[in-house]
Amino acid sequence: MSGNTFGSLFRVTTFGESHGEMVGAVIDGCPAGLAIDLELIQNEMDRRRPGQSKITTQRNEADRVQVLSGLFEGKSTGAPITLAIRNQDQRSQDYDYIADAFRPSHADYTYEQKYGRRDHRGGGRSSARETAARVLAGGVAKCFLAAQGILVRAFVSQVGAIRMDSNFRKFDLNLTDENIVRCPDSGAAEKMISLIEKVQADGDTVGGVVTGVIMGCPAGLGEPVFDKFHADLGKAMLSINAVKGFEYGSGFSGVALRGSEHNDLFENVNGKIQTVTNHSGGVQGGITNGMPIEFRVAFKPVATHLKQQTSVNRQGESVEIKGRGRHDPCVVPRAVPIVEAMAAMTLMDHVLRNRSSKYE
Amino acid sequence: MSGNTFGSLFRVTTFGESHGEMVGAVIDGCPAGLAIDLELIQNEMDRRRPGQSKITTQRNEADRVQVLSGLFEGKSTGAPITLAIRNQDQRSQDYDYIADAFRPSHADYTYEQKYGRRDHRGGGRSSARETAARVLAGGVAKCFLAAQGILVRAFVSQVGAIRMDSNFRKFDLNLTDENIVRCPDSGAAEKMISLIEKVQADGDTVGGVVTGVIMGCPAGLGEPVFDKFHADLGKAMLSINAVKGFEYGSGFSGVALRGSEHNDLFENVNGKIQTVTNHSGGVQGGITNGMPIEFRVAFKPVATHLKQQTSVNRQGESVEIKGRGRHDPCVVPRAVPIVEAMAAMTLMDHVLRNRSSKYE
Amino acid sequence: MSGNTFGSLFRVTTFGESHGEMVGAVIDGCPAGLAIDLELIQNEMDRRRPGQSKITTQRNEADRVQVLSGLFEGKSTGAPITLAIRNQDQRSQDYDYIADAFRPSHADYTYEQKYGRRDHRGGGRSSARETAARVLAGGVAKCFLAAQGILVRAFVSQVGAIRMDSNFRKFDLNLTDENIVRCPDSGAAEKMISLIEKVQADGDTVGGVVTGVIMGCPAGLGEPVFDKFHADLGKAMLSINAVKGFEYGSGFSGVALRGSEHNDLFENVNGKIQTVTNHSGGVQGGITNGMPIEFRVAFKPVATHLKQQTSVNRQGESVEIKGRGRHDPCVVPRAVPIVEAMAAMTLMDHVLRNRSSKYE
Amino acid sequence: MSGNTFGSLFRVTTFGESHGEMVGAVIDGCPAGLAIDLELIQNEMDRRRPGQSKITTQRNEADRVQVLSGLFEGKSTGAPITLAIRNQDQRSQDYDYIADAFRPSHADYTYEQKYGRRDHRGGGRSSARETAARVLAGGVAKCFLAAQGILVRAFVSQVGAIRMDSNFRKFDLNLTDENIVRCPDSGAAEKMISLIEKVQADGDTVGGVVTGVIMGCPAGLGEPVFDKFHADLGKAMLSINAVKGFEYGSGFSGVALRGSEHNDLFENVNGKIQTVTNHSGGVQGGITNGMPIEFRVAFKPVATHLKQQTSVNRQGESVEIKGRGRHDPCVVPRAVPIVEAMAAMTLMDHVLRNRSSKYE
Repeated sequence: MSGNTFGSLFRVTTFGESHGEMVGAVIDGCPAGLAIDLELIQNEMDRRRPGQSKITTQRNEADRVQVLSGLFEGKSTGAPITLAIRNQDQRSQDYDYIADAFRPSHADYTYEQKYGRRDHRGGGRSSARETAARVLAGGVAKCFLAAQGILVRAFVSQVGAIRMDSNFRKFDLNLTDENIVRCPDSGAAEKMISLIEKVQADGDTVGGVVTGVIMGCPAGLGEPVFDKFHADLGKAMLSINAVKGFEYGSGFSGVALRGSEHNDLFENVNGKIQTVTNHSGGVQGGITNGMPIEFRVAFKPVATHLKQQTSVNRQGESVEIKGRGRHDPCVVPRAVPIVEAMAAMTLMDHVLRNRSSKYE
Repeated sequence: MSGNTFGSLFRVTTFGESHGEMVGAVIDGCPAGLAIDLELIQNEMDRRRPGQSKITTQRNEADRVQVLSGLFEGKSTGAPITLAIRNQDQRSQDYDYIADAFRPSHADYTYEQKYGRRDHRGGGRSSARETAARVLAGGVAKCFLAAQGILVRAFVSQVGAIRMDSNFRKFDLNLTDENIVRCPDSGAAEKMISLIEKVQADGDTVGGVVTGVIMGCPAGLGEPVFDKFHADLGKAMLSINAVKGFEYGSGFSGVALRGSEHNDLFENVNGKIQTVTNHSGGVQGGITNGMPIEFRVAFKPVATHLKQQTSVNRQGESVEIKGRGRHDPCVVPRAVPIVEAMAAMTLMDHVLRNRSSKYE
Repeated sequence: MSGNTFGSLFRVTTFGESHGEMVGAVIDGCPAGLAIDLELIQNEMDRRRPGQSKITTQRNEADRVQVLSGLFEGKSTGAPITLAIRNQDQRSQDYDYIADAFRPSHADYTYEQKYGRRDHRGGGRSSARETAARVLAGGVAKCFLAAQGILVRAFVSQVGAIRMDSNFRKFDLNLTDENIVRCPDSGAAEKMISLIEKVQADGDTVGGVVTGVIMGCPAGLGEPVFDKFHADLGKAMLSINAVKGFEYGSGFSGVALRGSEHNDLFENVNGKIQTVTNHSGGVQGGITNGMPIEFRVAFKPVATHLKQQTSVNRQGESVEIKGRGRHDPCVVPRAVPIVEAMAAMTLMDHVLRNRSSKYE
Repeated sequence: MSGNTFGSLFRVTTFGESHGEMVGAVIDGCPAGLAIDLELIQNEMDRRRPGQSKITTQRNEADRVQVLSGLFEGKSTGAPITLAIRNQDQRSQDYDYIADAFRPSHADYTYEQKYGRRDHRGGGRSSARETAARVLAGGVAKCFLAAQGILVRAFVSQVGAIRMDSNFRKFDLNLTDENIVRCPDSGAAEKMISLIEKVQADGDTVGGVVTGVIMGCPAGLGEPVFDKFHADLGKAMLSINAVKGFEYGSGFSGVALRGSEHNDLFENVNGKIQTVTNHSGGVQGGITNGMPIEFRVAFKPVATHLKQQTSVNRQGESVEIKGRGRHDPCVVPRAVPIVEAMAAMTLMDHVLRNRSSKYE
């Protein structure tokens, strides 16, 4: 149980480290006969790609999607689908300085403690490059969900202390990618971009929040005890590099409300049962209720910055470390497609799981 | 994959609904030869029990722990350990009014959508009584962890808008149970109790936050990709009834920091490598680093209050609902042992998983 | 992964040892709304029960089925169904002689090696009594399958060297329970009974073969690589106490045939595609083809006999052992319902798994 | 749960079909720090390779092992190890004749029933080429086991009706590969080869039996209920293409013995507890006892022969089919490394699982 597989029925196993041959995903459990839109998947990869704008890292990774198995005449066959990208533009020597030293707030020390060794080149398996495999698999899930009218959307709602308008419903989420920070509130987006540029000029980094919304999701998804829909979704998000928190619906702010304020009253609107408010964030008792699923994901400031830091090495000696290589000053713009990918995988898994909920 | 099992190697399967025969847990994967302290487990059950104080529900459930299998001469044998409590003091007729109607922000509607039916008595499987089984299993995990010097502690850090001092390290966590709200900051505790009493007098409910701390945990636990330690811990917490959010270390507030402020610098203190700050909350790259693991869990205000609410019934007709039965005005004091139980289960599972991390 | 759970979607976790409180099964993943026929399940328990005839062990275990969770108004609710029987008529002192010594060809020595200890009373978890939990769970699966017209039948086809007519198709399998050895070939049955009586008189035991047939199974069940239908079925059978071999279709005897003899030619009989012969035993490429599934399970002679044997004890000293207690001279008549139960569980699991095979 | 993953802690996920880009395995759960001998793995691949002798199919697949991820400086890192081979020498047009027709005793019909479609080229995922991925993963397991002195050996013990001497212990298993049929009894080997040549000349095929022996295995492996060692081993073997039966120890022939003959008496030989006989085949109560593990695997005659056969097509019409392409007249010589690979994977998985059996 080394944790490289995600999902129960829609099972995604990722492999590959930063400076190996390939990074990829074996996607098992995709029902046969699904049309796989490779252009859609390539487009998601391009959204995640480094170097796409002035505020993201300038590594140049072409990241062309390769199909290693599982497709026949453009459709899934029931066999595992393997998608991968080759590693390129690697500068392993950029990482020689950490072969022996532990970068603060990275996984260097903990890998060493766990495994007794580590592939230090580019962070090895702990590299953000591993998330490329998630986007590949999430793309397959998006094909599945889109065909059923389920839309998975994410956007940047906070960078540093700058927050977009809390009522995101008044913005058109289709415009998220219109600016490089991927915030649909264009006024806030400008401020966020300025902040990131300032932080970058300082050789520093800053955190942010990605908000996710799932629309068109049917009621009934999720398992009511340990595998509550929001518990699996939360785990999916928390498994993304640099994530520090997850909340859905009213989240941490709902704590201060009274039950009589917080409860979402049911109403029948033209034959459709829905709720007047959505503090539940689309999930009640761990099961989706047909309302939009809304959640927020906190990303810490990236650990690699260009300022000098003190640390220790494998021998326990004090060392000075100064970040090198090419890194993002703020991870959230590129995290948007990753959040969407993990949400799509979680959702598709629960759609399949729910096929066994009733006898008939 | 109906989600009634938690864990990979330390696997806990819970069963039972509010008004059935028993609620219990089959605890599989406990190594043989562990002394199981049934008094400790009974004590945890008593901490979770309704009716223990004036601010908790007055149902009288004796909740005596019964051993159905797996122990021999006071120790685990390698066979599954089954612990259970009998259901008693049930007033099924208290729930007749919801056989047909959907209570707002409960699982009534979503169960009906998922399963096409539901056992409405006492909420059935969605009842908070299900958490008793978690406390039973968590008790076994606590026996395992205690023998290795690992301490799992939780306490109430917020009720409604009242927060305890954010620096919890200055309080003695051994005093948590000294007051009925289970907050180690006695000043804040008094205010919290007053608030709960006021809310209760209003027939209303209020939310809260439980903070968890794990001390004495070795470095190296957690799997670095999907099963990051904090991802599994987060899922564990989010699977508890009424939880809306989870964060660890700096959490959502860390978002606003710069990387140069947020990074936890390593230092060698008398041969032990540790970090100067602990924004990482004891976990880096998904793997524990030997520092205290710190996390916060948001609980919404309980959905059952005594005020009149509008809703719909199975026929889609508008109905009026008024809470009956005996319920907690605020769930967090009784949630403390449940948070500890889930944390202990997660931790024990990862201790066992880590036994395969190295070849030698 | 202690292996007390069987199945992927229809997941059965068994618990309990010979001389504990209860033996039972938590049955997870049963779709909601299935009518559970408790009489059918009790009847299966009675077929497995010791003491049902002169050729089975004379222990008197009433084995009344108890429902601990998961049923509401006679139907499954989607929650885990827990069924159990209480342990009774235990004579723990019958087993004192093996607290220290290892019975030949039992699990005494291997448990001790694995766990460093064992509950020796009645064989503990290795007792054949564990199979009662399988019959409980198998009963639920039989309810599910029967509603879809799938019949699971098993019968004794060999005892010692006495085999029934190899063409079992000419016998009425509904008559299997008409004789105490459960062989539908009444001529062979008589000889088998005589043999068992003779062996019993000698204080000895003898092995046998149980043949299983599944009729009415749709094509398409089974997963084509590791979880081939017959691989999961084989594992299910091999997991039953005392089983030494499994074959399906032509099995070991098919080895000697040529491909041109062995191949099952397809034909279209009134719009239904079937095969002329059934050397495949109803499974091709690991997936059912709609023909009857046929398999054979070899049971060794029970290890407990009443003759004196040499062995060693925990100290490695030579000891003399003589079987005591009440045991079956031949296990196969009572194994028939167990074989059926495991086959039913395997089948139901694959019916549910197959719900995700196609996109539409 | 599409069944492309094998194992609990040592988890192998295979991917790839006959005429896709690659066939490979993601090997998860290999402890860090294990030296991986790529030459050993290549050698195993060469043993499985088609065209290695006159009695195997003449397809020319170079099958060079490629490392896609998980190794660093020749050792495992704890990250998933991905090994693959490229597909070459494909003649997809050789399979056009079965795009529409169902070959007897192949998986054509059942895939179509399960998935509603199939990749017919070279049998797609049902191709024997899938077993190459198993040999890759088995090679990693062999590296692990060899370092602990555990030897996994398999050999051909029967072809058609020709059996080698039943007492295989008098032959040197190191000589297995000395002849092309891989039978250590050179006299029997000659007859087997003659038989295969004759069958091949007839355009026909014939079945066989592979015997496996595991030496140096410690006592204590295997889980005592559903995941008995021999149950998992049996499933592993039954999951190999063309396998029809599995037995261990005395197997089907043990049925005819009396308990007093069949029991393996314990003895203390110079401080080592062992058994006088080994009818148990090294496994008692599902747990290894330290004696050699012995098992037999039945392979049916390959379904593809060159004689004319009748069948039906997708439209249900009668068709004539005549095998084309290059195929083995008898699969067992090439099955030897596959049997070893599956045994090694099963064993390594249980070695890791057993690390959690005891508390201390």
